[in-house]
Amino acid sequence: MPKGLLIVISGPSGVGKGTVLKEFMDDPALRLSYSVSMTTRQMREGEKDGVNYHFVTREQFEEAIKNDELLEWTEFVGNYYGTPVKGVEELRNEGKNVLLEIEVDGCCQVKKKCPDALTIYIIPPTMEELESRIRGRKTEPEEIVQQRLAKAAKEMERISEYKYVVCNDDVKLAADIIRVIIERHIEKNERAGA
Amino acid sequence: MPKGLLIVISGPSGVGKGTVLKEFMDDPALRLSYSVSMTTRQMREGEKDGVNYHFVTREQFEEAIKNDELLEWTEFVGNYYGTPVKGVEELRNEGKNVLLEIEVDGCCQVKKKCPDALTIYIIPPTMEELESRIRGRKTEPEEIVQQRLAKAAKEMERISEYKYVVCNDDVKLAADIIRVIIERHIEKNERAGA
Repeated sequence: MPKGLLIVISGPSGVGKGTVLKEFMDDPALRLSYSVSMTTRQMREGEKDGVNYHFVTREQFEEAIKNDELLEWTEFVGNYYGTPVKGVEELRNEGKNVLLEIEVDGCCQVKKKCPDALTIYIIPPTMEELESRIRGRKTEPEEIVQQRLAKAAKEMERISEYKYVVCNDDVKLAADIIRVIIERHIEKNERAGA
Repeated sequence: MPKGLLIVISGPSGVGKGTVLKEFMDDPALRLSYSVSMTTRQMREGEKDGVNYHFVTREQFEEAIKNDELLEWTEFVGNYYGTPVKGVEELRNEGKNVLLEIEVDGCCQVKKKCPDALTIYIIPPTMEELESRIRGRKTEPEEIVQQRLAKAAKEMERISEYKYVVCNDDVKLAADIIRVIIERHIEKNERAGA
């Protein structure tokens, strides 16, 4: 069996990534798998170390950065989050196609270490539609809504970092097209590994 | 039969649009069709009015702009080029899926008049690869090569204007994925029109 693919999926907050991914995430033909991330944030009730996250101290995380053990990492509201290379490689060596749901900065880090990564960005049909989705799903203060939109607009200037961009104006259609993109790459990978 | 789709394909000079399109352009299942553009440039030997282009005077072209008869238009090296609405609508009303190969500015004009257009942008795997393709295909002065690359880099900042972006690192794969995108939209269009 050839080594599995590394798939990066990104998209602005509110675009509906989760809903799209749910359409095919469990399809056995795609052999998709999430890797377990590493974080310095507090474990919450019901979470298990090594399952939801690898929970580590700041010192351990910084040691992992120094030793180049992370495929990508970021700091968010005072906590580190990252993807250990080891976990990803183990899954890929088992033939699993590992899917990372990360941001544009993380994608750039991944590309440096793994130029062959299959990178996919999900965009909203329009910024107006993104705004209405962000406003629709929860009642956030206006300031936060504006921050999310500004961040999305800034991110969208960088989508040429990705190999594929798919518009989510229809969940089934977007999921279907992303599934085909992944399938075709699995087939190509199998031909190359054969 | 439902009205055909309007499909816009763009991508930087040198990305291999022609080679990708050739893979599926004549597939009867896709019912693809090019519309005849309007231009003010001189007719060349072997060209036929109404076949290669609708050849018109500057006054006629400017009249067409004024009367809102063009889906999009541009001026290039002193000549006008544009897509008459009428020709596109006639083909779409016959159930043909009309494909326009135009630039980012043209795509923005089309989206204003036809927000449902299926817009696809083809990107190179990397700018370095684009550079080597541009250098490989002909011997152009360094200045022109640099202009093409600068234009491509500028265009790529605007690819969020498109619904889909597909990387052409493998012609068959890129063509296959674009074909699927078009097929799925044809199916959706047929379901909506049924």
